[in-house]
Amino acid sequence: MPLAALQGKAPDSAWALDYAVVHHQEFLEELEAWLRIPSISALSSHRGDILKAVNFASERLQGLGFRTEIWQTQGQPSLFAERLEDKYLPTLLIYGHLDVQPVDPLDQWKHPPFEPWVEGNRLYGRGSADDKGQTMIHIKACESWIKTAGRLPLNVKFIIEGEEEVGSPYFADLLKRYENRLSSDVTVVSDTSMAGKDHPSITYSTRGLIYYELLATGPGIDLHSGGFGGAVRNPLLALSQILSAMVDKKGKVTIPGFYQGVAPLNKEEKKWARRVKALEKEWARAAGVSLAGGETGISAIERVWSRPTFEVHGLSGGFQGEGSKTIIPQSAMAKVSMRLVPHQDVEAVARSFERCAARLAPKGVKIVIRRLPGGGPAFLEDVKQPAFEAALSSLQEAFKKEAVFIRSGGSIFACDLFKRAFPKVPVVLMGFGLPDENAHAPNEWLDLDNFQNGITACALFYERFAKAARVG
Amino acid sequence: MPLAALQGKAPDSAWALDYAVVHHQEFLEELEAWLRIPSISALSSHRGDILKAVNFASERLQGLGFRTEIWQTQGQPSLFAERLEDKYLPTLLIYGHLDVQPVDPLDQWKHPPFEPWVEGNRLYGRGSADDKGQTMIHIKACESWIKTAGRLPLNVKFIIEGEEEVGSPYFADLLKRYENRLSSDVTVVSDTSMAGKDHPSITYSTRGLIYYELLATGPGIDLHSGGFGGAVRNPLLALSQILSAMVDKKGKVTIPGFYQGVAPLNKEEKKWARRVKALEKEWARAAGVSLAGGETGISAIERVWSRPTFEVHGLSGGFQGEGSKTIIPQSAMAKVSMRLVPHQDVEAVARSFERCAARLAPKGVKIVIRRLPGGGPAFLEDVKQPAFEAALSSLQEAFKKEAVFIRSGGSIFACDLFKRAFPKVPVVLMGFGLPDENAHAPNEWLDLDNFQNGITACALFYERFAKAARVG
Repeated sequence: MPLAALQGKAPDSAWALDYAVVHHQEFLEELEAWLRIPSISALSSHRGDILKAVNFASERLQGLGFRTEIWQTQGQPSLFAERLEDKYLPTLLIYGHLDVQPVDPLDQWKHPPFEPWVEGNRLYGRGSADDKGQTMIHIKACESWIKTAGRLPLNVKFIIEGEEEVGSPYFADLLKRYENRLSSDVTVVSDTSMAGKDHPSITYSTRGLIYYELLATGPGIDLHSGGFGGAVRNPLLALSQILSAMVDKKGKVTIPGFYQGVAPLNKEEKKWARRVKALEKEWARAAGVSLAGGETGISAIERVWSRPTFEVHGLSGGFQGEGSKTIIPQSAMAKVSMRLVPHQDVEAVARSFERCAARLAPKGVKIVIRRLPGGGPAFLEDVKQPAFEAALSSLQEAFKKEAVFIRSGGSIFACDLFKRAFPKVPVVLMGFGLPDENAHAPNEWLDLDNFQNGITACALFYERFAKAARVG
Repeated sequence: MPLAALQGKAPDSAWALDYAVVHHQEFLEELEAWLRIPSISALSSHRGDILKAVNFASERLQGLGFRTEIWQTQGQPSLFAERLEDKYLPTLLIYGHLDVQPVDPLDQWKHPPFEPWVEGNRLYGRGSADDKGQTMIHIKACESWIKTAGRLPLNVKFIIEGEEEVGSPYFADLLKRYENRLSSDVTVVSDTSMAGKDHPSITYSTRGLIYYELLATGPGIDLHSGGFGGAVRNPLLALSQILSAMVDKKGKVTIPGFYQGVAPLNKEEKKWARRVKALEKEWARAAGVSLAGGETGISAIERVWSRPTFEVHGLSGGFQGEGSKTIIPQSAMAKVSMRLVPHQDVEAVARSFERCAARLAPKGVKIVIRRLPGGGPAFLEDVKQPAFEAALSSLQEAFKKEAVFIRSGGSIFACDLFKRAFPKVPVVLMGFGLPDENAHAPNEWLDLDNFQNGITACALFYERFAKAARVG
């Protein structure tokens, strides 16, 4: 029997918060067990691990009285779970994902990426911050309510995606297929970072993304660079030249029409940016390098918040071994992406990039341009809604710091898809990562205070949003 | 007892030539045995194989009455062998090499690279053309003389290098240390290609080479391209931009002072180039691509014969696996070289390139520029010498085709070193490869007619040069 009921009191968050503090160690161990499943969505060899990670979460949520369903897609499966308390209560949809990034370069991990370890106040392991840790925060906030109050303060649905890290290629299909199952009064997404440890944050905008693989082919075989150097075109140099031509000396992307629709931050947003100006120092420290990228004449925060980019993620071709080998390689491959900001037209940018890359291919080199699945437009939310007030006050109380509105340079394609499917439902991004958490990199970690305070903030938010929605 | 002596005749080349025809199959099998030793000089793991290949040749030459010595260097050992018939006879020094190029991409070989196989009129296998096959031609030309005439028509020395394919880093040391042992009246180098199957050729010029490895480093770790894209500099894009900047749109290398000293072909050379104009078609066929590289407005033959180049041999960085991963990589690596032509100052070009690459490194990216050992200047020989007449007539008689003078786009650093050590000794490049022999590439092969005719040409040359030198 729930504690609150035992003592004859109305259930409120105080009991839930106590429960979460007392059970911190158990919660952590459960997260660690989830992190041990190498659910890498980019590698087809890990297909079975995605399903294992789905089943793991499904069992936990069933144990809390949720009904769960595994939703298959053409890609990886996702987990849906719901616990409907009362049809007169508002409904919360929680989005998270259980797939993780690949782990290379493996030799830079201090311990194996899927054997989580605690060091000081940090839990290390692939997925600790992005995004199993943040998803677990909500599962544990729910558990804290259910185990103390015997119920949740509102109806809760979970949608835990299985392929966010490859760009959510089939999430739009899921939303379409299950639109009525996913309807809610508010959607909370926990897959972002706070501006810093002293800045609990609500992210109101994320960037979009399109991702390409380019293959440049020239000679029929690797050629001796003596006999053929100066005679045939070098595909590796040609590919370098194509990529180089995409960005000018001032860091501006040169793809025609690329900046169409790109808007500067408004007055209020600039104020928010100034408030977290110290972020830049934290970024530089986390990156281990000066913030000398992107367009000149624009501050680093504004570049990440409001400017689109062109990045090369990988390039390979020719002889990469020890010593010297004098060949003109047959082919070269590059992986590139563009991060997009609100009001850019994804398909127009894609078409323009493809034309541009094809046009830059010199005689003697063929370019195959392959758009990889996933990606999508940027996301921008109006924060003048009661859900955001509830989130702000919950964060402030949990972290005992002023909460701030920020943008993220990253992409969560689900946000835009939710907005299209349910235009009137606010999408609130309450994230508990940190800028230097090594997401997508070796030695990813989650701050254990943020894990604890995150559970508190979510437990509070459930109650406050329920109240605000009833009043509204 | 030698055949000629048996029959009471003066020894001449006719007997030797007969012997070579009769023993074709045995010669081939001996070459195949040598090709089975994977003597890759670029890979330290194959160190023992270089020594095996040295010992193989040493035993064969000892069997022919040569005194042999293994000459150690700081790098790989070389084989020296000599058979001195008579101090009044002229002396021939034969240069070849027994090390081979690495074999990747391995999956493109039709059979394993060190299991030689015959298909039609070709012997396939790594080193078949470059350069074990060509070195074996001389060993077998000597054998043919010795087994029929009981002696060679002149004194013969062999220097068979063990690290030509990594740019002969210590060959200069060898030449210095053993200068008096290597002295001769003529040096023959067989490590080049003929202009085509109908064009037995003497190469009178080769290009030089300097080779670099560039390492661009940026962030301390791979970064999430969402959180950091637009904030930090991308080392992979930066490296691409540095490489791209080295060559302009017209294919001209932009390194300051790069073309200092570069001379066009003279009138006679242009005539020679026109004579093998058909080469260009053969090159394009061998390359499997149009000859659209290098500088615009200059014919392909002239570009390869007389123009320096900048090539990218390998590039690697970031995520190269399946699917998409959104990182800004920590670092990127490139292997590049410059082929140099006669009258360019190697060290001046090297200094200029290093300054240029360092200057192009943008803020936020560090460039480490490492010059790899080996390399050297171009080589240019004066063909108005009796040795060249002897070579020309020997080739014409052996191949029953007009022999031509050509330049090679490749590099044989030994040539320039011989020229410096022995300025008055002509260096004659009689090569028996073909333009499409896949040297340095998968499925390298040697034409079996060229193997046979090469032995004939060499056997004839020994006799004719000996006569010319005595007359001179």
